[in-house]
Amino acid sequence: MDGKDMHRDEGGHALKKFLEPESVALIGVPRQSGPGSYNNAETMLRYGFQGRIYPINPNAAEICGLKAYPAIGDVPETVDLAVISVGRDRVLPMVEQCIRAGVKHLLIITQGFADADAAGREMQARILAAARENGVRILGPNTMGVVNNFRRFTSAFIDLAPPRDFPPVSLIAQTGVIQVAAQNMAYRNWGKAIDIGNGCDLDVVDALEYLAADPETKIIAIYAEGITRGRAFLEAASRANLSKPVLVFKSGRSQAGAKAALSHTGSLVGEDHVFDAVFQRAGVLRVKSGTELKDAIRALLLMGEMKGPRLGVLTITGAGGIMVADACEDFGLTLSRLPEGLAEALQKGIPDWIHIGNPIDIWPVGMIGGNYPGVFGLALEELLRSPEVDGVVVILPVSNSPLHANLNMEDVVAQVRSRVGNGKPMALWPYIDTDAFVDRFEAIPGVACFDTIEQAVQGLSFCHRRHLAKERNIPVQTRF
Amino acid sequence: MDGKDMHRDEGGHALKKFLEPESVALIGVPRQSGPGSYNNAETMLRYGFQGRIYPINPNAAEICGLKAYPAIGDVPETVDLAVISVGRDRVLPMVEQCIRAGVKHLLIITQGFADADAAGREMQARILAAARENGVRILGPNTMGVVNNFRRFTSAFIDLAPPRDFPPVSLIAQTGVIQVAAQNMAYRNWGKAIDIGNGCDLDVVDALEYLAADPETKIIAIYAEGITRGRAFLEAASRANLSKPVLVFKSGRSQAGAKAALSHTGSLVGEDHVFDAVFQRAGVLRVKSGTELKDAIRALLLMGEMKGPRLGVLTITGAGGIMVADACEDFGLTLSRLPEGLAEALQKGIPDWIHIGNPIDIWPVGMIGGNYPGVFGLALEELLRSPEVDGVVVILPVSNSPLHANLNMEDVVAQVRSRVGNGKPMALWPYIDTDAFVDRFEAIPGVACFDTIEQAVQGLSFCHRRHLAKERNIPVQTRF
Repeated sequence: MDGKDMHRDEGGHALKKFLEPESVALIGVPRQSGPGSYNNAETMLRYGFQGRIYPINPNAAEICGLKAYPAIGDVPETVDLAVISVGRDRVLPMVEQCIRAGVKHLLIITQGFADADAAGREMQARILAAARENGVRILGPNTMGVVNNFRRFTSAFIDLAPPRDFPPVSLIAQTGVIQVAAQNMAYRNWGKAIDIGNGCDLDVVDALEYLAADPETKIIAIYAEGITRGRAFLEAASRANLSKPVLVFKSGRSQAGAKAALSHTGSLVGEDHVFDAVFQRAGVLRVKSGTELKDAIRALLLMGEMKGPRLGVLTITGAGGIMVADACEDFGLTLSRLPEGLAEALQKGIPDWIHIGNPIDIWPVGMIGGNYPGVFGLALEELLRSPEVDGVVVILPVSNSPLHANLNMEDVVAQVRSRVGNGKPMALWPYIDTDAFVDRFEAIPGVACFDTIEQAVQGLSFCHRRHLAKERNIPVQTRF
Repeated sequence: MDGKDMHRDEGGHALKKFLEPESVALIGVPRQSGPGSYNNAETMLRYGFQGRIYPINPNAAEICGLKAYPAIGDVPETVDLAVISVGRDRVLPMVEQCIRAGVKHLLIITQGFADADAAGREMQARILAAARENGVRILGPNTMGVVNNFRRFTSAFIDLAPPRDFPPVSLIAQTGVIQVAAQNMAYRNWGKAIDIGNGCDLDVVDALEYLAADPETKIIAIYAEGITRGRAFLEAASRANLSKPVLVFKSGRSQAGAKAALSHTGSLVGEDHVFDAVFQRAGVLRVKSGTELKDAIRALLLMGEMKGPRLGVLTITGAGGIMVADACEDFGLTLSRLPEGLAEALQKGIPDWIHIGNPIDIWPVGMIGGNYPGVFGLALEELLRSPEVDGVVVILPVSNSPLHANLNMEDVVAQVRSRVGNGKPMALWPYIDTDAFVDRFEAIPGVACFDTIEQAVQGLSFCHRRHLAKERNIPVQTRF
């Protein structure tokens, strides 16, 4: 049959019920709670979910203080979502029970399907067929499920601390690790995360459609080992790209990686340069590592677009300026011309042997003239106002020492930006007591801080690539 | 005259007096102390220096509680070291006064010499000539000077917090920023740091000789924009390389970077591939960014050498294994064969559809079998014992949650390593509550933790490159 889209929710719409359920049944939740039990009723409650939770377990009357039910058919309402985590042989019977109970959205955590062997592939096919015949949508199998921090909802059986602070950045992944490792791979955390697992039904394309239309999501990040519906992906990504940046971390780039991907989620990964072409055509920004993923999110979230490749550099260390210049070449950016009149303005009252160029080495100017914050602010303002400059890199020491309490550079930066506006991105490398200052600088619109000078420049390159992708001025080399 | 080496300390020996002085005169120290005064008597005292400090200032009787002297000639002893930070026009007279007072080691902080203009170059040449005629050694000009944490000594006029914990890793740099930004670019901190500045007399080669012979230094890191004495550098680096790893972060790689380097320290940087060849021949490991510098130090300090390129991978996430495989290709390493018998041992008591390969995805084995720490330990031990495996990558979640308190993986790792010994390096990517666990894992000999999976693999690649460099099996492509 091909009534696929007639009897069931369209993919993007269906995902709303997985991310924002009012009621959830947990099939296969253990009776035990506490250390070592991986009880997802317990983790859901600890995460702060405010919806109705129905543990399903024939051997328990109560689990984590919640009334338990022997079977899904005994639950007094038709739940929005059932989460299934029983042994793989028992998944199909549970799916059938859910269908009979009228449940339309099934999240299957269990692994051992297309990711495992021929028997698993066969079982997965039967589960999918049963779902399709009945207008039921499936997320998984072989998934950690979802996190939605806007609703304090998680299906994970790992106990995660709900973040106090999270950005409107959402993740689609073919793995649970990137949502679990939110502190390691996201900027602060994810807003929402969807692990599509084997993606037997709902897949990357559906998740992309959901997040493209989601007002709570401003940036979409994708981790993929393979893309199965290439043309649909291209279309969905291109549409999403009109309204928000789409980042993709595609692994299985290497031969060994491709082989490992096949045994992980059964993904055939294909030729890597084909993916490059597809991503480029769709306006999707590719990243090649966890570091790049985190930095690209930070750059796009805090700095937005950069309209051209020309950087002004304001540095308190000459060596830092050289590192910026090297990184510009690595990441396809250039050093701008020095704004007209700036050299003359900075040179007032200081010896003429102090050379002013771009990078602007502001240390001798500030120290010999005795007004470092003043000349720093002047140079920054001129760089930001100059039509020659598309974005600015700033390298400066930040110190907790009382001996340097006179240098409130975050105030200088904030004042300059409030005067000139926030149109141009500004990437900082604050060194020495960095941790104490990042939040203060990043509270200023358009400013992001990076761990290294090279990452600051690369961050700006993402802002420029985003601009090109949005303008669709990107070179297209595709086999499609 | 060419009596250069007859009347003065040999370079490496001379540097001992700069790093380990018993008595220091500060010429040009301001009367003011406190915020904004950049008083290096104050910063030296705050840093905890226990030697004798003589402020030289004709307009003060006392500075920071220390008796001040009008001129160096008034100081009651011949100091080991004079630190000069007066305006550039007054430096030569001060140097001449020091010579008359018998001071043999001069650290010149002042800038505006070869880094500035023709007049500065001329002054620098005169200073150097005066020094050479009198057997005096100079560090600088245009330098932040030195830090020696073993003696709690710093010449910096920036107020730095003395580290409680620092490794035996020392820095030679053509800039002050890398010693000041120790928390950003080193592993915890530097043991010693030497900013050679313009290097008019003592240069990278002298510093390399000092640190090569220094028992307090186990790893040498160099930041260079150019190398002036190429052949001497090659010889000194090759000798140092016999006893300890030498890392070099050479900037000015790009055209724009080379131009910026010229105006920073007057360095002519030359063709980058020539440097690659020289570094390779000398057995020096080149890094290309601040991140790589930090990671290479961490890898070599904590993990030592790796004798071959073959990695065993133990991961709790299939996606992580794919990322490791990709990174292996990026960094010249390979996935090892699975140790014989390991698949069978792990598969005991679990369904046969669980596929065991390298990367070993230990999650399904541990969760379905119900003994994750046990199978993790078994797999780790076999990988470390296997003659097929040169080093191990481990990817695992670490959690502060009481619900996961049963997983004391640091104990499992420590026990395995105490059984099999510490001969093989082990790079970890601990995710979730990473910060709480890094120190615990890194207390285990041979274990290092990295921020991302790619950095963990790259870290091991440094350990392998160090092995090759020490064995002198490196391919040599040099124009020398």
